[in-house]
Amino acid sequence: MRIVRFSRPDQSVGWGLSLAAGIQDLSLADPTLPTSTNDLIANWANWKSHVERLSESTALSDQSLTLLCPLNQPKKILCIGLNYRDHAIETKSPIPKEPIVFCKMPTAMIGPNEPILLPKVSMQIDYEAEMVLIIGKNLKNADEQQSLDGIFGYAVGHDVSARDWQKDKPGKQWFLGKSFDSFAPLGPEIVTADSILDPNHLAIRCSVNGEMLQDSNTSELIFKPVELVSYISQVMTLQPGDVIYTGTPAGVGVAREPNRFLKDGDIVEIEIESLGILRNPCIQER
Amino acid sequence: MRIVRFSRPDQSVGWGLSLAAGIQDLSLADPTLPTSTNDLIANWANWKSHVERLSESTALSDQSLTLLCPLNQPKKILCIGLNYRDHAIETKSPIPKEPIVFCKMPTAMIGPNEPILLPKVSMQIDYEAEMVLIIGKNLKNADEQQSLDGIFGYAVGHDVSARDWQKDKPGKQWFLGKSFDSFAPLGPEIVTADSILDPNHLAIRCSVNGEMLQDSNTSELIFKPVELVSYISQVMTLQPGDVIYTGTPAGVGVAREPNRFLKDGDIVEIEIESLGILRNPCIQER
Repeated sequence: MRIVRFSRPDQSVGWGLSLAAGIQDLSLADPTLPTSTNDLIANWANWKSHVERLSESTALSDQSLTLLCPLNQPKKILCIGLNYRDHAIETKSPIPKEPIVFCKMPTAMIGPNEPILLPKVSMQIDYEAEMVLIIGKNLKNADEQQSLDGIFGYAVGHDVSARDWQKDKPGKQWFLGKSFDSFAPLGPEIVTADSILDPNHLAIRCSVNGEMLQDSNTSELIFKPVELVSYISQVMTLQPGDVIYTGTPAGVGVAREPNRFLKDGDIVEIEIESLGILRNPCIQER
Repeated sequence: MRIVRFSRPDQSVGWGLSLAAGIQDLSLADPTLPTSTNDLIANWANWKSHVERLSESTALSDQSLTLLCPLNQPKKILCIGLNYRDHAIETKSPIPKEPIVFCKMPTAMIGPNEPILLPKVSMQIDYEAEMVLIIGKNLKNADEQQSLDGIFGYAVGHDVSARDWQKDKPGKQWFLGKSFDSFAPLGPEIVTADSILDPNHLAIRCSVNGEMLQDSNTSELIFKPVELVSYISQVMTLQPGDVIYTGTPAGVGVAREPNRFLKDGDIVEIEIESLGILRNPCIQER
């Protein structure tokens, strides 16, 4: 299943399923369903078969729906650094022996087509195409099987990064450079894990204004989704609706000669095989 | 005002005010009040005078109340590193020219008397006494006056830190070492800003099993509360209920010879003048 969240022409918000031919507005079809996709994910075991049956009997929406971020209330946005071998090499960083984990704040998350605001205090805004894991269960000290069962689904994500704030500040903490408002685009869909044959073999690409700048495959991930979930769950309880940005492949702007940073009017498109295309325009903050 | 949150003997949860003689259960006195302290803080402009009037006519609770973390839904837990001059020196770090900002995850937050779980995967758990700012308004690119107006109140916080995870992992990101479950004790009270004469001149102390290990004053802060709020708001929108741990003074365990790390059964007490005492026992995870 491919879960989407949207606003309707009357500004009300709902969610449903994305099919090849269009979108089913399931929250309109059955108002007893959870209104929040986070609540849906947290109670998926109770709702899954009902959602499947409902989908069989629901027509495609004939309204003009505007897609929103498929999650409405992210609590944790975890991110992995240097998790593609080629990207570690291009940034002249050693191949990590353990996952490098950092995070973004919930105020950074936006949906498809929403603008990435280029902050006036940075001159080095960079793109990073990433596969995102959506957590579906409470997980603490999870083994590999529990971690696999705990991944609700996958989505396309964009780990927008202000390199000057990430790298050049006292203390060398990446956090601020990763947490500007709008720096965590996600979507357009959450694809449930049972709809993905193998998350470890998906083409992943990023283009800016149609120019392909990243072109790799999740098979290049150093630490695989299950390893990441298990590793992080040693530290903190992962909860339904938490997300993990799994890292970006080679080709980022800061590693290019000359640097290729994002500028006002740029359109970034990130495509991951089977997960869809996440498109966001860039707008300079004034 | 000193806002507390608590559970009653029937397990229901409420909030009220802490007076010298006891606690007023305001959410019992007026069920139309917001049930969540986060909602209360977000709508404080509407509720403040009502709360003041209600307090004048409400008796002290005669129930046995168990104090909880005064915030029920932290969204952002921001932290400042090396923000006391003496602590920067003891850790042989340069005095930062800009605030060093990192964060903890919401799953780390606990209340007074709740146990700090010493994770089995770390051997270097350290204490850090900190004054915490509670944000009361939406703030983006806030100037100093807006930042001052945006601080709802203050509380005692404990920035528990797994030094081996903070310092010795690839990528040198502090995040995981700061984000273990239970590593962000807060409380027992949120003291509203109008009840604090000067947050920049408060004694701050930490003792373990009665032995005083940190003893300083917030006058030693390199970056003051207002500067921190203004600085962070350049990056992200601060929201009501967000918290900022402002940094710790000298005396931490990792800077002692020999090191003094927390162990099973230790009792940590952090006291800040006018803000109260935050006490938490340590329990080894098995």
